[in-house]
Amino acid sequence: MGLLESIRGPKDLRVLDTDELNKLAQEIRQEMIDVVSKTGGHLAPNLGVVELTLALHRTFDCPCDKIVWDVGHQTYVHKLLTGRLDRFKTIRQYHGLSGFPKRAESACDCFETGHSSTSISAAVGFAKARDVLGEGHNVVAVIGDGAMTGGMAYEALNHAGHSKTNMIVVLNDNEMSISPNVGAMSSYLNRLRADPRYDKRKEDIEFLLKRIPIIGPKVAKAVAKAKDSLGLLFEELGFTYLGPIDGHDQALVEQLLNQAKGKKGPVLVHVLTRKGKGYKPAEDNPDIFHGVGPFDPETGKIIKKSAPPTYTGIFGDTLCSLAKQDPKVVAISAAMPGGTGLNEFARLFPERFYDVGIAEQHAVTFAAGLAFGGLKPVVAIYSTFYQRAYDQVLHDVCLQQANVVLAIDRAGVVGDDGPTHHGVFDISIFRVIPNLIFMAPKDENELSHMLYTALKHNGPVALRYPRSVGQGVTMDETLIEIPVGKAEVLREGRDVTLVGVGPMVNTCLSAAHELRHRGVDAAVINLRYINPLDRHLLLHYARLTKKMITIEDHTLKGGMGSAILELLEEEGLEGIAIERIGYDGFVDQGPISQLHAAHGLSVKGIVQAAERLGLFRRVAGS
Amino acid sequence: MGLLESIRGPKDLRVLDTDELNKLAQEIRQEMIDVVSKTGGHLAPNLGVVELTLALHRTFDCPCDKIVWDVGHQTYVHKLLTGRLDRFKTIRQYHGLSGFPKRAESACDCFETGHSSTSISAAVGFAKARDVLGEGHNVVAVIGDGAMTGGMAYEALNHAGHSKTNMIVVLNDNEMSISPNVGAMSSYLNRLRADPRYDKRKEDIEFLLKRIPIIGPKVAKAVAKAKDSLGLLFEELGFTYLGPIDGHDQALVEQLLNQAKGKKGPVLVHVLTRKGKGYKPAEDNPDIFHGVGPFDPETGKIIKKSAPPTYTGIFGDTLCSLAKQDPKVVAISAAMPGGTGLNEFARLFPERFYDVGIAEQHAVTFAAGLAFGGLKPVVAIYSTFYQRAYDQVLHDVCLQQANVVLAIDRAGVVGDDGPTHHGVFDISIFRVIPNLIFMAPKDENELSHMLYTALKHNGPVALRYPRSVGQGVTMDETLIEIPVGKAEVLREGRDVTLVGVGPMVNTCLSAAHELRHRGVDAAVINLRYINPLDRHLLLHYARLTKKMITIEDHTLKGGMGSAILELLEEEGLEGIAIERIGYDGFVDQGPISQLHAAHGLSVKGIVQAAERLGLFRRVAGS
Repeated sequence: MGLLESIRGPKDLRVLDTDELNKLAQEIRQEMIDVVSKTGGHLAPNLGVVELTLALHRTFDCPCDKIVWDVGHQTYVHKLLTGRLDRFKTIRQYHGLSGFPKRAESACDCFETGHSSTSISAAVGFAKARDVLGEGHNVVAVIGDGAMTGGMAYEALNHAGHSKTNMIVVLNDNEMSISPNVGAMSSYLNRLRADPRYDKRKEDIEFLLKRIPIIGPKVAKAVAKAKDSLGLLFEELGFTYLGPIDGHDQALVEQLLNQAKGKKGPVLVHVLTRKGKGYKPAEDNPDIFHGVGPFDPETGKIIKKSAPPTYTGIFGDTLCSLAKQDPKVVAISAAMPGGTGLNEFARLFPERFYDVGIAEQHAVTFAAGLAFGGLKPVVAIYSTFYQRAYDQVLHDVCLQQANVVLAIDRAGVVGDDGPTHHGVFDISIFRVIPNLIFMAPKDENELSHMLYTALKHNGPVALRYPRSVGQGVTMDETLIEIPVGKAEVLREGRDVTLVGVGPMVNTCLSAAHELRHRGVDAAVINLRYINPLDRHLLLHYARLTKKMITIEDHTLKGGMGSAILELLEEEGLEGIAIERIGYDGFVDQGPISQLHAAHGLSVKGIVQAAERLGLFRRVAGS
Repeated sequence: MGLLESIRGPKDLRVLDTDELNKLAQEIRQEMIDVVSKTGGHLAPNLGVVELTLALHRTFDCPCDKIVWDVGHQTYVHKLLTGRLDRFKTIRQYHGLSGFPKRAESACDCFETGHSSTSISAAVGFAKARDVLGEGHNVVAVIGDGAMTGGMAYEALNHAGHSKTNMIVVLNDNEMSISPNVGAMSSYLNRLRADPRYDKRKEDIEFLLKRIPIIGPKVAKAVAKAKDSLGLLFEELGFTYLGPIDGHDQALVEQLLNQAKGKKGPVLVHVLTRKGKGYKPAEDNPDIFHGVGPFDPETGKIIKKSAPPTYTGIFGDTLCSLAKQDPKVVAISAAMPGGTGLNEFARLFPERFYDVGIAEQHAVTFAAGLAFGGLKPVVAIYSTFYQRAYDQVLHDVCLQQANVVLAIDRAGVVGDDGPTHHGVFDISIFRVIPNLIFMAPKDENELSHMLYTALKHNGPVALRYPRSVGQGVTMDETLIEIPVGKAEVLREGRDVTLVGVGPMVNTCLSAAHELRHRGVDAAVINLRYINPLDRHLLLHYARLTKKMITIEDHTLKGGMGSAILELLEEEGLEGIAIERIGYDGFVDQGPISQLHAAHGLSVKGIVQAAERLGLFRRVAGS
């Protein structure tokens, strides 16, 4: 039996000596590599926080003390140390452990996350509640340097620094371009700053901090400047700043955390860690191993299945070719150039590509400014992260009719990342915005045409497409405009109309085939435009078939089906029987196809809906 | 004829000498006081930027140069100087000039605003577009110190500082607690910092900045700390910092702006202004004259009509009494303690009240932290500003079932502030969130009971109420819980069911009275719960009357009426004729009653809907 099996909870860590802790760290890394090589997951971030998590759990007393993890994908070590080793193999699986903190899983998960930059806000809340209730526990937020680019983190720092409440922010700084010599300098700075004489020597240190670049000179990212100034910035905002130190020196981190624990008021502890630490393939390619699919643990080789290109890939390719033809096309990412398929665009058009950091609000309003300045900006953000920029889409883009294309990637369920990452609210919240043209393609070929159409259109356009491989269809060589507000009839039929949006249209086609076998003649409509709806066509088929089934990879409330209900009401069409297929409530984690099946987004689900509409009764009786 | 009448555009300002400019400033102030005393409006902020706006328009060349105004309520002077004097009397009136920048009004309004902290983002966009297109104009953002507490401004600074593009941010610092001696110190600092030898003396100045408080020691607000450090913060983020200077010394401001114009890269110009400057009543009460109704221009006395208390007032009063009984009740405001009725709460319970600045995202997640820490937080934010915290409501409060009460003030149209301030999207975007109980009271008495109910409830609750005086009903002395998901039948009827939400219920009652006169027997339902719907009761009346009219002070798409359409579909109820009353598209500015009338939210509108449902035909034929 290894050491890890003997750890039932954080208390068991306190009795270990240095050698045992090192051995435990090794076991933890091995366990994570073994499991994630099969399940996939956020490996590199977790390899980077092994010593930090050990130090946190030896210094603080969970669940009495509160540790809030920003984003939360770096909590695997935390899970292993808080009684979840036996279930660890189920991580990110259907009905298994979550890849993020979950209050239902453990009392040690005090706050759930998934999106970036919330931890300091939550921690100020925990700290203030403790103060009001006269309690005495510690509150710690653990936040990465990337998450510090989100404005919300600044709002929270502003409040925390002013409030003077006792709390600790651990800045887990894993910027990969940190060069080795930085470590030496930072150790020096740390010895100075962590010293009791610190206050007297503050000015000297600040002088040094200004002159000695903590960050290598070639860090060409927006985060760099922010990081460079973090020490000062925190002090200016009312924090005591400790660090930076080597985050893989567990004893040192523990020492600093203990020091922080003893201080009054808000304290920032700056630790430097390395993403992928201890596993060479992940150290070499921390980007790839950030969120990774199954791989060979020996070689680190990713297990790839041959598959058609993804929607994201086709989006990126098409945007590149359109940008070659039109110098006004520019692209914006919020810290996700790879995830949104924009790496090639960034390489080809560095002057026309903007990665603004984890700053969706700024990304969207910045795009509106670019548009009024005469360019054609395309903002590519995941559906779930657009929730961060709702007001900016509404006011800065749509109210003033800015020529902005909102590319909504990862629309629909996304799989193992679960409810914080599913993109199942965008239709409800975006279709109600006046002036916004809102499209969804049935396949990757249509996606190209739609992107072309969006860039031709004068005014704001949104375009939603899923996280998945395409249908494997042939791509047209010449792109054409798809008339705004025009749906497409893919199959004529007189008994029922199936209305699909996005790739669900293909499920409708298969279902129509199945229904045909059972004597039901279904029309299939590819909606194409969620806004404006093709009123004429939809009304025609509603009148013709009297029965409709709508299907969307999205929440039912306020969704596409709801838009069609509104249309029928507005036109005074009564007596049309409708079944809507989609999600009701938050959707669990799990494989996309399994989630679809579980919620009736399948041929079977459509056939069952047809049954509820009484379509087979009629046939049986005939 | 005064000087102001001779100003047809910014160019006419360039020929004026100092005396003429002073005279013009006086005329501008007089014109604004005269007009706003009749129309109401944002007087104090505009009185504070007279010299700054003159200096901007003498230094920069609109519309070629781009000036982006943050929030935008301080653009009256700008409007007067850019050809809109003749229409100025119509400001904030129905079909009149907007109280905010509007692209349709003038080429000099390059970006529309209304919500805070967007100007730097838009300005970076304009600047980057200029760079890509090889143009050479200037780009200026004008932002207040309050707006700097919004995280989005930080996101934009981060990007601007890194991008090294030429742009100017004018920080209009009108913090009212600035004491006179600060002016002298800041002038000294300015002379030093604006000096060509500045760079060499930077360390000295920074030393001084740290030791000499720019802000009086008693500024007990979160903004204070941020402001205190702004100079350093901007420099750290890659800006050249100029100032602070007296923003009412027009020549000095002009000089500094010209200096900024000549610099490479992003520049911050820090000007100190006084809200209400030049009009004693507004200088003495800048809070009251920030956004003010009609007043006597001679005395500054606000013209008040006797009226029942507002919903906001009742909310604040009720919260205070509930907080007296329960020490766990705490309240959060995002820079709007007065507007949301929390001033008295803040006075009574200073340790349990948190004003976090213009930081809605942080406010909501902070509340979730407070809730998990064991308190009962109530977050009071205007409907339109909740759009800034959608993701936080969804993930941080609702997904993890935090015990947070979301008080949605100013729900429905708000009047003269227009489309950026109307609260007409909250039902659509909040009702689709799983786990969120969503209420709306028909009157101020019910609001009290609902707030009581919300605080008793275990889990997230939203509560929407309008910007207006209450119905003048008697307030119950004892508060009781309103059963979750239970609607109220206010009137029985067999011909049609009127479903109202919020105070629209009272319009339904009046309409039922009117319909009775015309032979139609209408049932009236006070919906109370938008989520969960009272399915049983709604279905009963749908079946009984076969005809329904829904009415909501809200957008039609995805709104309350749409929720009822979904209910009928889910229950397979066909053949129910429904008319939904609400808004379609963005709603103009104007008096609330006029906006209601224009969109059919009136007795007349309901009667017309009844007519469309054929209710009178039947009666006529009988």
